[in-house]
Amino acid sequence: MSGYNVAIVGATGAVGSRFIQLLEYETKLPINSVKLLASKRSAGKQLKFKDQMLTVEETTPDSFEGVDLALFSAGGSVSAKFAPEAVKHGAVVVDNTSHFRMDPEVPLVVPEVNPQALKRHHGIIANPNCSTIQMVVALEPVRQKFGLDQVICSTYQAVSGAGQSAINELMTEAQQVLNHEPVEPKILPVSGDEKHYQIAFNTLAQIDVFEDEDYTHEEWKMINETRKIMEDNDLKVTATCVRVPIVVSHSETVYFTTTDRSATPDDIRAVLKTAPGVVVEDDPKHQVYPQPINAEGKKDTFVGRIRRDMDNQGSFHMYVVSDNLLKGAAWNSLEIAETLHEMNLLHVQD
Amino acid sequence: MSGYNVAIVGATGAVGSRFIQLLEYETKLPINSVKLLASKRSAGKQLKFKDQMLTVEETTPDSFEGVDLALFSAGGSVSAKFAPEAVKHGAVVVDNTSHFRMDPEVPLVVPEVNPQALKRHHGIIANPNCSTIQMVVALEPVRQKFGLDQVICSTYQAVSGAGQSAINELMTEAQQVLNHEPVEPKILPVSGDEKHYQIAFNTLAQIDVFEDEDYTHEEWKMINETRKIMEDNDLKVTATCVRVPIVVSHSETVYFTTTDRSATPDDIRAVLKTAPGVVVEDDPKHQVYPQPINAEGKKDTFVGRIRRDMDNQGSFHMYVVSDNLLKGAAWNSLEIAETLHEMNLLHVQD
Repeated sequence: MSGYNVAIVGATGAVGSRFIQLLEYETKLPINSVKLLASKRSAGKQLKFKDQMLTVEETTPDSFEGVDLALFSAGGSVSAKFAPEAVKHGAVVVDNTSHFRMDPEVPLVVPEVNPQALKRHHGIIANPNCSTIQMVVALEPVRQKFGLDQVICSTYQAVSGAGQSAINELMTEAQQVLNHEPVEPKILPVSGDEKHYQIAFNTLAQIDVFEDEDYTHEEWKMINETRKIMEDNDLKVTATCVRVPIVVSHSETVYFTTTDRSATPDDIRAVLKTAPGVVVEDDPKHQVYPQPINAEGKKDTFVGRIRRDMDNQGSFHMYVVSDNLLKGAAWNSLEIAETLHEMNLLHVQD
Repeated sequence: MSGYNVAIVGATGAVGSRFIQLLEYETKLPINSVKLLASKRSAGKQLKFKDQMLTVEETTPDSFEGVDLALFSAGGSVSAKFAPEAVKHGAVVVDNTSHFRMDPEVPLVVPEVNPQALKRHHGIIANPNCSTIQMVVALEPVRQKFGLDQVICSTYQAVSGAGQSAINELMTEAQQVLNHEPVEPKILPVSGDEKHYQIAFNTLAQIDVFEDEDYTHEEWKMINETRKIMEDNDLKVTATCVRVPIVVSHSETVYFTTTDRSATPDDIRAVLKTAPGVVVEDDPKHQVYPQPINAEGKKDTFVGRIRRDMDNQGSFHMYVVSDNLLKGAAWNSLEIAETLHEMNLLHVQD
């Protein structure tokens, strides 16, 4: 076969740049061509792909002519408008936005957890929320072996989850604080929300807008997406999502209770050591535990600080760290495409 | 009465400087004199107190001659050596280190929670760990009204908890990262431990050294000190303590289950609104929630993000933020002294 014609929608963004890097040299997917799409504002930009310079084009319905695989990461409204157009042109869409995630017709997939859901796709596959992906990658092997009754998560999320402008804002603010200059927040916590707060040397317990029951949209995503991916609507999941002044990689404290209460920390560690996509970094004697700066640029999910709750048999803590732009976004999307290819669910059009 | 002769041991440190500020204008305690004590290395330094310049003296057993109240915050070994000397000279010691905290003869006190324990003192009163204090200040009013069955805490702790040198390290590293220069960590996560890691734009899931069951000393403190302060050895408490790149104020996600399962989030909010030392900042509609930079320099504990766990009746989340150098250290110590004074347990020596 000749390889796929791939389009990246949102090619100039933080996740888009990771798509380009991964497609250059880090995918098993046979590639025939790569098309870079973005908003009108970014059209005309030149971006390097291997030894070529590619020109970014404005996304239009006709952009998807001849495209076999479209990787979307340009915001929910862009996916809402153009993903169905791409499907009409025969492309399979892997969408990194939240727009289609809870649509019962759209599979929501983490390849290590629920690849079988890909068989039910009708052209669009949704990539889950970054903080959800790394949590389920670490929890699923435990669930398979010991069952899972309850999960309580607190996140320490990097600003890159809010895009390149949020990264720029953190760096600018950090320098202003070091210079004893006033800061002028304009993006975080949520660019479209009313108030903006300093993130440099601060925490912000708001990721995305507030919704029902005083949970944020990000917290509801962690609850609802985890249940959909694990295909278990009765699973007890709850979360508090907090932005911290970090550029890349989300950290999470994950407290969980197994159904089989006889599991030990060594059992949990043993299961995770052979789990796909998981690297156990857990050696307290030698001060080894996952760190965001070590996870940056890596595709795995790093797990450490595994230990039991001393008061509740069958309950455990772990600390889960992963690059939110890779496993949390671009890499998981590309793994979905690779899995579709392996399952013979992705095709080069005539 | 003429007022107390007060000694500050560790006057040149991050907490010591807060003691000086508070004693200048922010205490109800009648003060006759203030003596600044530190290590030999710092002796001779001049520090401003009101309109005087005071000379820092080296701490010796004789330093406590005529001292009525000694506020210690210079490390456990200094307290071990000199707190008994201060008591011999008739002083009451309020010790901010961990050295005496779990001694059954030494009361461990948060004045909003267990002032009655002060009656049992034999000269030394221990000030609890910073991350424990703010958590129990927020939990005790709930416990009084609805009972408390279980607590699961994740912390987002500021570097100032590790002293002035750790603050300097964060600021230096942050500038180095912004300049694209290499960083050279020498202090954090634990100055006395073998390996040191970057804290700027990173998280470190290690505060203090690792101990039994792969919990850190800081995590054991949160468990054991909470039980001692609340005088409930059966209370289920567990924690994961994480350092984040913040200068002042610890944040905590606190998940708790009440004994009376009928409580609602509004009930919890109502109880906390009238609780001593607590300020409820909880208005999601207007993006109001506690933030470290807002808590800095304030004596209160700020609580927000109060909401129920959707799957477990009687379980709740809250987000607790407080200045770790004030309510977490200097202010709580001084409040202990003020409470001793009010209870007629502190005396001016003849």
